Amino acid sequence: MSASTQRPWTPEEFEAQLRDKGTAYHIHHPFNVMLNTGKATREQIQGWVANRYYYQIIIPQKDGAVLSNCPDREVRREWIQRILDHDGHGDDPGGIEAWLRLGQAVGLSREEIVDQRHVIPAVRFACDAYLNFCRQRPWQESVCSSLTELFAPIIHKQRLANWPEHYPWIESDGLQYFRNRVTQARRDVEQGLAVTLAYFDTRPQQEKALDILKFKLDILWSMNDAMALRYGLEGGPK
Amino acid sequence: MSASTQRPWTPEEFEAQLRDKGTAYHIHHPFNVMLNTGKATREQIQGWVANRYYYQIIIPQKDGAVLSNCPDREVRREWIQRILDHDGHGDDPGGIEAWLRLGQAVGLSREEIVDQRHVIPAVRFACDAYLNFCRQRPWQESVCSSLTELFAPIIHKQRLANWPEHYPWIESDGLQYFRNRVTQARRDVEQGLAVTLAYFDTRPQQEKALDILKFKLDILWSMNDAMALRYGLEGGPK
Repeated sequence: MSASTQRPWTPEEFEAQLRDKGTAYHIHHPFNVMLNTGKATREQIQGWVANRYYYQIIIPQKDGAVLSNCPDREVRREWIQRILDHDGHGDDPGGIEAWLRLGQAVGLSREEIVDQRHVIPAVRFACDAYLNFCRQRPWQESVCSSLTELFAPIIHKQRLANWPEHYPWIESDGLQYFRNRVTQARRDVEQGLAVTLAYFDTRPQQEKALDILKFKLDILWSMNDAMALRYGLEGGPK
Repeated sequence: MSASTQRPWTPEEFEAQLRDKGTAYHIHHPFNVMLNTGKATREQIQGWVANRYYYQIIIPQKDGAVLSNCPDREVRREWIQRILDHDGHGDDPGGIEAWLRLGQAVGLSREEIVDQRHVIPAVRFACDAYLNFCRQRPWQESVCSSLTELFAPIIHKQRLANWPEHYPWIESDGLQYFRNRVTQARRDVEQGLAVTLAYFDTRPQQEKALDILKFKLDILWSMNDAMALRYGLEGGPK
């Protein structure tokens, strides 16, 4: 029986299918496992922070694309909080600034992060693919693609639990980004999930949503592939 | 001597050139002159408010496009205020909501504004042209196109000065939108002007900026043409 003739999953079934995609989350990527089990060198950690910076700076631009494509004011009023959180607003310096502080805590200069000298081309291509997707696709698809946030709190909590033990040379203040995101990701995912469950309401649409989530998981996974290739695994090139 | 070989205008000269374009601002359009000199019928005022609503709801989407296209976090941190102002944020119901209150004050139902039943196709096309421009062009060009704000405070002040006298049947509360925009437009134009004066720095670029501003003036003018055609001039069809 093809997807087009099957009954839609119930919201509970659909959400469970989305959550099942977590097996492809980059928390399982060897490069991330190495980072979060204390086996990374200083250079590997620095490489990760410098490359992941490119992802960080793409995020508000893709969230701007969601606003631009979304005619629903109520959705925009909630969604804009992500940009305020990330770019900072008023007294809050924001998530990108917190990431720069993390970079400095792992021994990078602010300049070498901001000028993107360490950013691997494949990392750039993966992040740009995400931005282009959000610019070109209906806003509900962009919202769906944000649902890797479903799996984010646990990866941030791992970092908070393991990094101070394994990498005592990183100043604790530098980890503030992860502390902030545990709470923010949980709130963000509620809106993203509500939109996705409501919008993708036939079985073919629901299966499309799973493909979109997989596309986004592939982006995060590819970034880790590129970093593993550049910086090596398990202690890397000595 | 072609533009490409001429010296760039100084910032003062360039700003004066931009301000000179105000002669094409829709404040001079016969339909607007009619509105602001007390010669419009109730139906013409209602038609104007219902059609201009479409412009209002496009604005946050075009500002989202600016955020999406702009990699400069400092610019985004300022620019986002426009979306917060327009969509509302926290306790502030925002500019679109204020426009809906204006619509109700002139005797339209909220529903007939929101469902866009009165929106003339040519008004829609003009506003969509603006949104598409901002999605597709470099963010600095979108910023430049916002500089019709240079001329906005005076048109809003005209409305505040003349409407209560000419149209006493409009509740004064309904004019709050214009009160808010006098201040906001003045602040917004400072950022827009600073970006434009800095970015368009050769004579050909400066002349391109004038063309962009003219394009945006044409959008506002065309909207008034379409409304004059639909609702008539000087009291319109009785």
